[in-house]
Amino acid sequence: RLDSFVSISELQEEAKKLLPKMAYDYYASGSNDQITLAENENAFNRIKLVPRSLVDVSKVNTRTKLFGRDISTPILIAPWAMQKMASQRGEIDTVEASKEFNTIMTLSSLSTTSVEDLSNASNGNPGWFQLYVFKDRKISEELVKRAESIGFTALVLTVDTPFLGKRTADFKNSFKLPNGLSLKIFERLMLSNLDGGLNQYFATMIDPSLTWNDLKWLKSITKLPILVKGIMCPKDAELALQYGADGIIVSNHGGRQLDTCPSTIEVLPYISKVVQGKVPLILDGGIRRGTDVLKALAYGANAVCIGRPIIWGLSSGGKDGVLKVLSLLNSELQLAMALTGINKVSDVNNSIIWDQNKYIKL
Amino acid sequence: RLDSFVSISELQEEAKKLLPKMAYDYYASGSNDQITLAENENAFNRIKLVPRSLVDVSKVNTRTKLFGRDISTPILIAPWAMQKMASQRGEIDTVEASKEFNTIMTLSSLSTTSVEDLSNASNGNPGWFQLYVFKDRKISEELVKRAESIGFTALVLTVDTPFLGKRTADFKNSFKLPNGLSLKIFERLMLSNLDGGLNQYFATMIDPSLTWNDLKWLKSITKLPILVKGIMCPKDAELALQYGADGIIVSNHGGRQLDTCPSTIEVLPYISKVVQGKVPLILDGGIRRGTDVLKALAYGANAVCIGRPIIWGLSSGGKDGVLKVLSLLNSELQLAMALTGINKVSDVNNSIIWDQNKYIKL
Amino acid sequence: RLDSFVSISELQEEAKKLLPKMAYDYYASGSNDQITLAENENAFNRIKLVPRSLVDVSKVNTRTKLFGRDISTPILIAPWAMQKMASQRGEIDTVEASKEFNTIMTLSSLSTTSVEDLSNASNGNPGWFQLYVFKDRKISEELVKRAESIGFTALVLTVDTPFLGKRTADFKNSFKLPNGLSLKIFERLMLSNLDGGLNQYFATMIDPSLTWNDLKWLKSITKLPILVKGIMCPKDAELALQYGADGIIVSNHGGRQLDTCPSTIEVLPYISKVVQGKVPLILDGGIRRGTDVLKALAYGANAVCIGRPIIWGLSSGGKDGVLKVLSLLNSELQLAMALTGINKVSDVNNSIIWDQNKYIKL
Amino acid sequence: RLDSFVSISELQEEAKKLLPKMAYDYYASGSNDQITLAENENAFNRIKLVPRSLVDVSKVNTRTKLFGRDISTPILIAPWAMQKMASQRGEIDTVEASKEFNTIMTLSSLSTTSVEDLSNASNGNPGWFQLYVFKDRKISEELVKRAESIGFTALVLTVDTPFLGKRTADFKNSFKLPNGLSLKIFERLMLSNLDGGLNQYFATMIDPSLTWNDLKWLKSITKLPILVKGIMCPKDAELALQYGADGIIVSNHGGRQLDTCPSTIEVLPYISKVVQGKVPLILDGGIRRGTDVLKALAYGANAVCIGRPIIWGLSSGGKDGVLKVLSLLNSELQLAMALTGINKVSDVNNSIIWDQNKYIKL
Ligand SMILES: Cc1cc2nc3c(=O)[nH]c(=O)nc-3n(C[C@H](O)[C@H](O)[C@H](O)COP(=O)(O)O)c2cc1C
Ligand SMILES: Cc1cc2nc3c(=O)[nH]c(=O)nc-3n(C[C@H](O)[C@H](O)[C@H](O)COP(=O)(O)O)c2cc1C
Ligand SMILES: Cc1cc2nc3c(=O)[nH]c(=O)nc-3n(C[C@H](O)[C@H](O)[C@H](O)COP(=O)(O)O)c2cc1C
Ligand SMILES: Cc1cc2nc3c(=O)[nH]c(=O)nc-3n(C[C@H](O)[C@H](O)[C@H](O)COP(=O)(O)O)c2cc1C
Repeated sequence: RLDSFVSISELQEEAKKLLPKMAYDYYASGSNDQITLAENENAFNRIKLVPRSLVDVSKVNTRTKLFGRDISTPILIAPWAMQKMASQRGEIDTVEASKEFNTIMTLSSLSTTSVEDLSNASNGNPGWFQLYVFKDRKISEELVKRAESIGFTALVLTVDTPFLGKRTADFKNSFKLPNGLSLKIFERLMLSNLDGGLNQYFATMIDPSLTWNDLKWLKSITKLPILVKGIMCPKDAELALQYGADGIIVSNHGGRQLDTCPSTIEVLPYISKVVQGKVPLILDGGIRRGTDVLKALAYGANAVCIGRPIIWGLSSGGKDGVLKVLSLLNSELQLAMALTGINKVSDVNNSIIWDQNKYIKL
Repeated sequence: RLDSFVSISELQEEAKKLLPKMAYDYYASGSNDQITLAENENAFNRIKLVPRSLVDVSKVNTRTKLFGRDISTPILIAPWAMQKMASQRGEIDTVEASKEFNTIMTLSSLSTTSVEDLSNASNGNPGWFQLYVFKDRKISEELVKRAESIGFTALVLTVDTPFLGKRTADFKNSFKLPNGLSLKIFERLMLSNLDGGLNQYFATMIDPSLTWNDLKWLKSITKLPILVKGIMCPKDAELALQYGADGIIVSNHGGRQLDTCPSTIEVLPYISKVVQGKVPLILDGGIRRGTDVLKALAYGANAVCIGRPIIWGLSSGGKDGVLKVLSLLNSELQLAMALTGINKVSDVNNSIIWDQNKYIKL
Repeated sequence: RLDSFVSISELQEEAKKLLPKMAYDYYASGSNDQITLAENENAFNRIKLVPRSLVDVSKVNTRTKLFGRDISTPILIAPWAMQKMASQRGEIDTVEASKEFNTIMTLSSLSTTSVEDLSNASNGNPGWFQLYVFKDRKISEELVKRAESIGFTALVLTVDTPFLGKRTADFKNSFKLPNGLSLKIFERLMLSNLDGGLNQYFATMIDPSLTWNDLKWLKSITKLPILVKGIMCPKDAELALQYGADGIIVSNHGGRQLDTCPSTIEVLPYISKVVQGKVPLILDGGIRRGTDVLKALAYGANAVCIGRPIIWGLSSGGKDGVLKVLSLLNSELQLAMALTGINKVSDVNNSIIWDQNKYIKL
Repeated sequence: RLDSFVSISELQEEAKKLLPKMAYDYYASGSNDQITLAENENAFNRIKLVPRSLVDVSKVNTRTKLFGRDISTPILIAPWAMQKMASQRGEIDTVEASKEFNTIMTLSSLSTTSVEDLSNASNGNPGWFQLYVFKDRKISEELVKRAESIGFTALVLTVDTPFLGKRTADFKNSFKLPNGLSLKIFERLMLSNLDGGLNQYFATMIDPSLTWNDLKWLKSITKLPILVKGIMCPKDAELALQYGADGIIVSNHGGRQLDTCPSTIEVLPYISKVVQGKVPLILDGGIRRGTDVLKALAYGANAVCIGRPIIWGLSSGGKDGVLKVLSLLNSELQLAMALTGINKVSDVNNSIIWDQNKYIKL
C-alpha cells in the first residue's frame, strides 16, 4: 500500500486520515497564525534551480560525511516529540529505519521511548540526542551522561524554546498524552507528567535563563560534539562559533515558536556566510521535495533534517513508512542533482540557483 | 466561557454572533473598498521578526512609562464611539478593565456615557479624552474644561476627520443609534441627535477648517498635554512638533477615513525618524497579535492603541471580555519579547526586524 | 431606487441584472484573457494616497477648466458605442446628464443616435466628437465637417484601433445590434450595417494605414482642437506633440484592445513627464472611485474620462443613472481631496502619493 | 464545430472531455508540484507590451525564414510523444497540418508513427527529427542516418532528459501505451516496449552520460544542422555555441523535467544576450496566446515551438484541429503585431516590452 504514494503531501493526507485529531493537530500545527509554517514551504517554492545539460550524470550519488561518519544521504531525521502517538513502536520504528537507510536520527528530549530502549533497538548506535536544559541542572547533567554512555554520538541543544510557542489547536484540543504513554526519558526523573499541558510543562521545568555561557558549561560535562539547534540570526551564528558550538542547525522549530519569523531557507545564505564551513551547518523546516534539499545544500547547508515528513511516514506505515519517506525524498534529490548536472553532494554550490543578476540581459 | 478563546480573531467571530448586524457592521467596517483596513493587518504579517537565542529571558517584563505614568503594558485602549451598543455598561466596562489592567483608556467624543459617569466609575482617573473640534468653538472649549476638571490627564485631538469617511455598510443599514442610547457627552450641549446619520452629523457640527494654528489655541485653553491623533505623513509629524504637540498618534482611523492610504506600520519608521523620541509616539491600526505590538515598538513607537480588539472583547464579555483581550495580547507580547531575546520595552529596537540588507549573503 | 446605491460596483451589479447578456458582455468585456482590464482597476488600488491633517478644507471645490471651458468636475464621459442598448434614449440621456452636471460628453463614432439629434437634445452644445478614420477619407471628411457645423467643440481621434481587439464573449454571443438599432451617424453614409460583427466591420471600413501625417491632414480640414486618444507609449506622446495634437488621452480602450498592455495609470507619470503641461492630458481606464480620479490628477492628468461607470449608470436608470454616477464619483473625489488636504484641482500634485523613497527610515 | 473555439484554453477543455483520463493526464502534467508548468504561462502574463499608434499596419505579415526556409509563421510544432493517443492518425495529422500551414513540425523520438510513414505522408518533407541518444550508440547512429536519408532537414537533440521527470499522475494512472499503439520508430530496433513505464524506459535505454563532446560525435555522423533543445542556463548556451550547435531551443520540456526551474521566457533575454544572433534561437513552453509569441520574439527568439496547444487541437479535431490552433494563434500574433506597430517578424525587438526604467517619471 505504501508503494502507491509518490509525494510527501499524499502521505500527509494519509496520516490525517489515520491519526486521532488531537495527535494530527499537535504534529501539524505552527504557532499563532501559522505564517512562518507556510513560509517555510513557500520560500522553497520561490527559489529557482538552473537546469544544466550534457553533464555525465550516470553516477549521481547522494552519499556524504558528517562528523566523520559516512551516511547515504544528506537527509537526517529531526528530533520530534512523542512518536508513540504516531505508531505503536514510535521512536523504535524511526531509529530502525534510520539505521537501515544509513542516516542519522536525533532523539527528542520529549521521547515516549527511553534512551535505553532506543539504544538497544539500534545496537548501541542510536544517533544524536536532543536536549532541553532543565531549571534543575542536575537533571540535565544526568541526562547528558546517560546519553553519552549508551552510545549517542552528538548532542543537539535546542535554543529556540525558552518558552513554548502558542499553538491554537493544542489549546482547543486540551492536548495531552494519550493514556499509557509518557515522557519515558524523564520517568526515572519524575518529570514525565504532562497533565497541565505542554506550555505549562515548559514554563515550570525548562530553564529560560540559559545563556551562551551555559554552552561552555555543557561542553565541560561531555566529550560529545554539541550542535546548537534553532539559530535564525547571523549574529547568533557568530556567537555560536565563538562559544564553541560544534555544529549549527538553522531552524525555526518548524514554525512552532515565533510566528512571522523568516523561513529557514531565507536566512540560510546569510548564516552560511558567517559560518564559512568552520563547522557543519544543517537546516530544517519546510523540506517536502528533493529539490528543497538541493536548494539548502546550494545555500551552504551540509545536510538537512526533516520533521513532519517523517511524522507522516511513521503514521502511515511505521518503520516502513519512515523508509518510504527517506527513499522517496532521496530519489527526488538524486533526480534533481542529475537535472542540475551535479554528481555528488560536495559539488553542490549556489551556482545552481537561478539569480538573474549573475547574467546580462538583452 | 471567555477562557476558551485564544486569539483576537475568535473573539471577533463571537462578537459577530452576538451583536445586531447594524452594530457589528459599524464597528467592523472600513471606508470604500476597505483596502486600507485589510492592509493595516496584512502589513504587519509581512514584517519578519528575528528570533534570538540564549539570552536570559526569565524576567521579561512589559511595564513601561508614558507621560510619567507607570503602566503595566504598552498596549492602550483607542477611543471608539458608542460603546453601549457593545455592552450594557459600555464605556464603564472598558474604563474599569483599563484600570484593573493598569493601562490607559481614551474616551471618545462620541461616547454613550457622560464624562462625569466615567470619571466616577474610575475614581476620578478616567484616562485620556479624545476631542473633535466643533464649528462652535465655545462647545469645544467647555468640553475641554470639563474634561480637565474631572480628571482626564491628556487630550487626544483627532485630526483625520474633517469629514467622515464613506462606509458602505452604514449607508446600507441606515445606521443610527439604537433607542435609548445617545451621545451623552453632548447631551447638555443639545448635540446628541444623530438622526441624519453620522456623516451628516460631521458635516453639520465638526469644523473642517481647523488648522495647525488651532492647536495653539487649544494649548492656550488647557494645561493638559495634547496628543495629535491621525498623523500619516512625515511632514505632518514635523508640523505637529513645530506647533507644540505633546505626543503623536500615527493612525488612519482603523481604515475608516481615506481608503487606499498606507497602513500605519508602513509609515511608522518614517515618522519615527522625524520625531526622534522628542515626544511620545503611539501607533494604532491593525494590531491583532503580540508580535504586531512588538513590531510597532521596534519601529519606534512608545506604545500602541487597540480599537477593534477591545470592541470584540467588550461585545463578547463586557468588562471581563476587555480584560481577556488585554491579557491575551499582553501575554503574546511577552512571549514574542522572550523569543526575540528582549527583556524590557525600552530595550526594543529595529534590530529585531529581519532586514536582509543588514547581512552579507553567501 | 437609485438612492440606495453607494458605489459604482453596485451599479454594475444592477446593470448586469437588467441588461440582456449579449449587451452586458459587450459592455463589460476586455480582450483575450482580460488581464489589462483587471490591471486598469488593480493598479489604482496599489497606489497609496497620503492623508494630510489640519489644512482648512471647508471649501474644497472640484471645478476646473478645459480648453477654456469651465466645468464642474474633472470627470468627463468617455465615448462608448451603441448606448441605445443600455437605455431607450441612449446617447440623448447621457448628453442631457452631462449638460446638467456641467461636464463634457464625447460622442462615439459608433453612436446609435445621429449627431443632429444629439446636437438638438443639447441645444447645440453636444460636447466632443470621437472619430474613427475610414478607408474612404471622403466619409471622414464629411463627418468632421458635419460635427463641426452642428456644435461639437473638439475632435477625439482614436488611434488604438487599427483593428478591433479580440473579445471572447462577443464571438460566443455572435454579437450584433438588436433589431431596430443602427449606427445612426453613418446611416446617410450607408455604413450602418453591422451584420458581420464588429471585427469584420473594422477590418472592412476602418483604415489601418493611418499615420501621424494623417493628423496633419485632419488638422487641415477642421478648426476644432484635436485630442489623440489611445496613447500608451511616452514616445507616441512625443510624436503627438510634434504633429500638433491639441490634447492627449492616455487610454488602452478600457482593456479592449491589446491585452497584457500596462494599465493606464501605470504609464501616466511617464507620459506626463513628456507632455509637461503643454497640452491638456486626460486619462481613462479603470476609474471606479473618487480616489482613482485624484491619483490620476496627482500623476499629471488634467481630467479623466469614465466609460463603464457611465454605462452602468445609464443601464440602471437612464439620464438619472448617469447623473447618479457623476455625483457619486464627484463626491468621492471631493472627500478624497479634503482628506489629502487639497482645496482645488489645480493644487493637486504628486506629493499626495505615498512614496517611501521621499522620506528617511528609522 | 471547431469554428466555435476562440482560444487555446477552450480547446484544452474540449480535449479534456474527449480524451481518456490516462492520456489527458500524460499530456497535461508537469513534474512534481507543477510550479514550473504554471510559471511558464504566468511569466508571459506578467510581461507587458507597449501599444504603438499611427503606424501603417495595413500589411502586417508573419512570414519569416529559418535555416534558409520560408515559413508562413514563426510558430513551429514542438516534438511530443505518442500522438496516436490523441487522434487515430496521430503524427500523420500533425505533419499534414504543418505542411498546409507552411510551418515546421519536429517528430518526437517517441513517435507512434514510423519515420517512413511520416515521410510518405509529407511527400518526403517531414520537417525536423528529435533525438534521444541511446546507451547503445549504434541505435542512435542508425536512427540519424535513417532520418537524414528520408528527408528530415534538421536534428533536434534533446538535452534536458538524462532521466525522466517525476510526473505524479502517470504513476497514479500506471501510465502505459494503449493496446495497439507502440513506439514505431524503435520497432525494428526492438525498443518499442514501454511496459515498465516511461521512467524505467528512460533509465534503461537513454544515456545519462552524454556530454558536450557527444555533440561533436553527432555532428561527425550527419550533415544535418543540429539544434540543441532544453537549454536553460546562459552558460550552457555558451557551451552549445562553442561545441558547434546550429541552433538553440530554450525549453524546460514544458515543465515536465526539473520542477521549480525558471519559466523559459524568464531566461530567454539572458540567453539571447549570449547567442547574439549567431545561430537561430527558439523558445518553447507556455505559449497560449499570440501576445506570448510576440514577447518571445521581442526577447530575441527567431521562432517559438508550441506543444500542448497542438495536443489540444489534434485531440479536438485531428488535422483540422491542428490547423485551427495554428491559425488561431497566428491571427492573434498578427493582431498583436498591428497593435504594437510592427509589420514584420524581423522588425520585432525589445522596445515593444514595457520597461519603466527606459522612461523618466513625473
Ligand atoms: C510534532 C513536532 C514535535 C517536535 N518536537 C521537537 C522537540 O522535542 N525538540 C526539538 O528540538 N524540536 C522539535 N521539533 C522541531 C523539529 O525538530 C524540526 O525543527 C521541525 O520539525 C522541522 O520542520 P519540518 O517539520 O517542516 O520538517 C518538533 C517538531 C514537530 C513538528
Ligand atoms: C467603531 C469605531 C469607532 C471609532 N470611533 C472613534 C472616535 O470616536 N474617535 C477617534 O478618534 N477614533 C475613533 N476610532 C478610531 C480608533 O481610535 C482607532 O484609530 C482604530 O480603531 C485603530 O484601528 P484598529 O481598530 O484596527 O485597532 C474608531 C474606530 C472604530 C473601529
Ligand atoms: C462598451 C464600450 C464601447 C466603447 N466604444 C468606444 C468607441 O466607440 N470609441 C472609442 O474611442 N472608445 C470606445 N471605448 C473606450 C472608452 O472610450 C474608454 O477608453 C474606456 O471605456 C475607459 O475605460 P473604463 O471603461 O474602464 O472607464 C468603449 C468602451 C466600452 C467599454
Ligand atoms: C505530452 C508531451 C510529450 C512530449 N514529448 C517530448 C519528446 O518526446 N521529446 C522532446 O524533446 N520533448 C517532448 N516534449 C516537450 C515539448 O517538446 C515542448 O518542450 C513542450 O511541450 C513545450 O511546452 P508547452 O507544452 O507549454 O508548449 C513533450 C511535451 C509534452 C507535453
